Amino acid sequence: MTERISSVDVLDVRFPTSRHRDGSDAMNPFPDYSAAYVVLHTSAGATGHGLVFTVGRGTEIQVAAVRSLAAMVIGRPVDALVADPGALARQLIGDSQIRWLGPEKGVVHMAAGGLVNAVWDLAARRAGRPLWQLLASLSPEALVAQVDFRYLRDALTEDEALQLLQAAAPGRAERQRRLLEDGYPAYTTTPGWLGYDDQKLERLCAEAVDAGYRLIKLKVGGNLADDVRRMGIARQAVGPAIGIAVDANQIWGVPDAIRWMRELSRFDPYWIEEPTSPDDVLGHAAVRRALAPMKVATGEHVHNAVMFKQLLQAGAVDVVQIDACRVGGVNENLAILLLAAKFGVPVCPHAGGVGLCELVQHLALFDFTAVSATMENRFIEYVDHLHEHFTDPVRIRGGRYVAPTAPGMSAQIVPASLAAYRFPDGPAWAIEEAA
Amino acid sequence: MTERISSVDVLDVRFPTSRHRDGSDAMNPFPDYSAAYVVLHTSAGATGHGLVFTVGRGTEIQVAAVRSLAAMVIGRPVDALVADPGALARQLIGDSQIRWLGPEKGVVHMAAGGLVNAVWDLAARRAGRPLWQLLASLSPEALVAQVDFRYLRDALTEDEALQLLQAAAPGRAERQRRLLEDGYPAYTTTPGWLGYDDQKLERLCAEAVDAGYRLIKLKVGGNLADDVRRMGIARQAVGPAIGIAVDANQIWGVPDAIRWMRELSRFDPYWIEEPTSPDDVLGHAAVRRALAPMKVATGEHVHNAVMFKQLLQAGAVDVVQIDACRVGGVNENLAILLLAAKFGVPVCPHAGGVGLCELVQHLALFDFTAVSATMENRFIEYVDHLHEHFTDPVRIRGGRYVAPTAPGMSAQIVPASLAAYRFPDGPAWAIEEAA
Repeated sequence: MTERISSVDVLDVRFPTSRHRDGSDAMNPFPDYSAAYVVLHTSAGATGHGLVFTVGRGTEIQVAAVRSLAAMVIGRPVDALVADPGALARQLIGDSQIRWLGPEKGVVHMAAGGLVNAVWDLAARRAGRPLWQLLASLSPEALVAQVDFRYLRDALTEDEALQLLQAAAPGRAERQRRLLEDGYPAYTTTPGWLGYDDQKLERLCAEAVDAGYRLIKLKVGGNLADDVRRMGIARQAVGPAIGIAVDANQIWGVPDAIRWMRELSRFDPYWIEEPTSPDDVLGHAAVRRALAPMKVATGEHVHNAVMFKQLLQAGAVDVVQIDACRVGGVNENLAILLLAAKFGVPVCPHAGGVGLCELVQHLALFDFTAVSATMENRFIEYVDHLHEHFTDPVRIRGGRYVAPTAPGMSAQIVPASLAAYRFPDGPAWAIEEAA
Repeated sequence: MTERISSVDVLDVRFPTSRHRDGSDAMNPFPDYSAAYVVLHTSAGATGHGLVFTVGRGTEIQVAAVRSLAAMVIGRPVDALVADPGALARQLIGDSQIRWLGPEKGVVHMAAGGLVNAVWDLAARRAGRPLWQLLASLSPEALVAQVDFRYLRDALTEDEALQLLQAAAPGRAERQRRLLEDGYPAYTTTPGWLGYDDQKLERLCAEAVDAGYRLIKLKVGGNLADDVRRMGIARQAVGPAIGIAVDANQIWGVPDAIRWMRELSRFDPYWIEEPTSPDDVLGHAAVRRALAPMKVATGEHVHNAVMFKQLLQAGAVDVVQIDACRVGGVNENLAILLLAAKFGVPVCPHAGGVGLCELVQHLALFDFTAVSATMENRFIEYVDHLHEHFTDPVRIRGGRYVAPTAPGMSAQIVPASLAAYRFPDGPAWAIEEAA
């Protein structure tokens, strides 16, 4: 009998991270890191795992969206599905009625991405490989066929993408070896949450340097005097050789961003991240021009490849921050990696949250192996929260990601955690309610 | 006792328009015009009505989002709510956890807009005035206070907005009189749906001219030879003096849009609407440069004021097409009207669907009364579908909207229609299921 997708579980899982202000920033003072968690089941008993990261309230909306789109996945023959996840991605994203709710943005787009990522997880498990190696085993032609170029051709054609991938093909095996031996550079956001006091900030900065990180990140944008003091503490703690990126999480308009960052420029920030609305391509370009040579980074809220295309066309960013769960899954992130390579801009993935480190590491390792072929000025974000809930948690050694080797996209949450943190009826929340 | 919002009903209402291909275009071959319909109830028995327009599948996701956000409205004192809907808009749009699902875009943003519009409908009913007149009765200072300028100040400051509104203040009474006497120009999309055959197209074009329209619209982008033939039929039917706008509904990438529209330019299209992705500000600018002096229009899918700001900054559009239900409600549309006025670009609202004509006419009439103060090159879209389901349907006379005079935002659907078209259990759908 043909193996088919027999059912799709979609779970609302929430971790009460706001209790300790882990993850607190200028726009998210009390986040509860959460996920709409997806499990594809096949008639042969195999599974594929994916998730959409959220920060608490509203996760039920994301769950509703994944459930609605899952109807388009159930019943599909698995062989065809894993051979061409791009076909599913096009149908989920292009559905002529559902696309009104986006198009290609927000809740419905992330729902498509969660399902597409789950299909890639299933594909990699069936292939017995970690996703980054499965992707790196595909020919340039096969990779190009996984991308929807409809809105990208004014910046990147199929032929140009093919040439980029062909140019990087010869060294793939050697780069895979390097990754398996040395891993991939990480930076840490653990020291710099806005809700942490000065002592905790200082201690965590020192620990980060001791652990081997060459770049850390601080949240800014709450209060300028606080930011000046905290940047001073951090610079003192890490010394002049370690990079300190800062992240405003969209708190400012364009004039405010320029004014505020001029004040912080004396601490030599490595980049300013999300200085303003993620939709404001021209605003980012204006900020970058005004603050040059300070780098500008954005991406965790950039909702699709069309927006990344424009950020690159407008010269608005120095750093492209892909996110595994914001866009339409692996396929759209492949498009974004290709765009970044075409424009010669480094990709430093956004991570943290729930599972974002686990998923996005595969994209960065694939990028090094088969697309950009370089790790120069590239780091994957690392935050040391919630990894214990994953069956294949990321591992960090000497400030670098250890290349994952288990089959899949590392997206599986352990059953005990699903049971404990299920919202609203898991014991972690039932206790909260009672208290 | 203080009057409060006591409950919020959110209904899934769908009309099976796909059966006759009403509303068919290049990206929406078979839409079922639908809505997440909102009714605010107060403890004194008053109501406020709003809706989010959708096109069928996925309406349940939009309903889930409105329900989630409605929790923030229930219990609020009505006096304070209607005195400052902007305060609610800021809280709904700025919620630190829910904004992760946007921010300011897609399902959660439209949900906020549906609720904010329902509050304005309630406010206008309490004031005993149609919304456009209520808005036009507010002082320039009060209007400016209803707008969130956080991400707009690089293009429009509070002071500039105030000056625009003050400059238009003197003629308000006279312009209201004109609107009540002569109405506001409409254009009609009724002739041009892609699924209509040539005979129907020709007949409807002739009828539109006879009815007094000076501008009609055709859907394009399915097949170039068909478009050439249909444009020829339409031009022949309406003669050289009537404008024919064309609408591609995002089907093309930038190079395709330019190539295709060069072929259609011989028919002198009045504008090309949605030539590519609504997110592609720079793409629209490139299309406009390449096709000049042909006008470029977009907006029904432009998800917030930050995007409209950039379309104006980049010189990407000749026509701003606001939509009553896409953005965060009346308040954000006020921001967009002010931006368009600052840049001197005419606003020609998108309408059609379910209730979009009813709602958006208030914004256009307010714009004429208190913001732009001109009707030159301005038309509200009109489509003659589904108005019979509203308690205060729009009225057209001689190709112009008749100014509405009933209190509210004209957003109320008649109870019998709600009962008949409720999805999935209304009789209109139960019969479908049985057939």
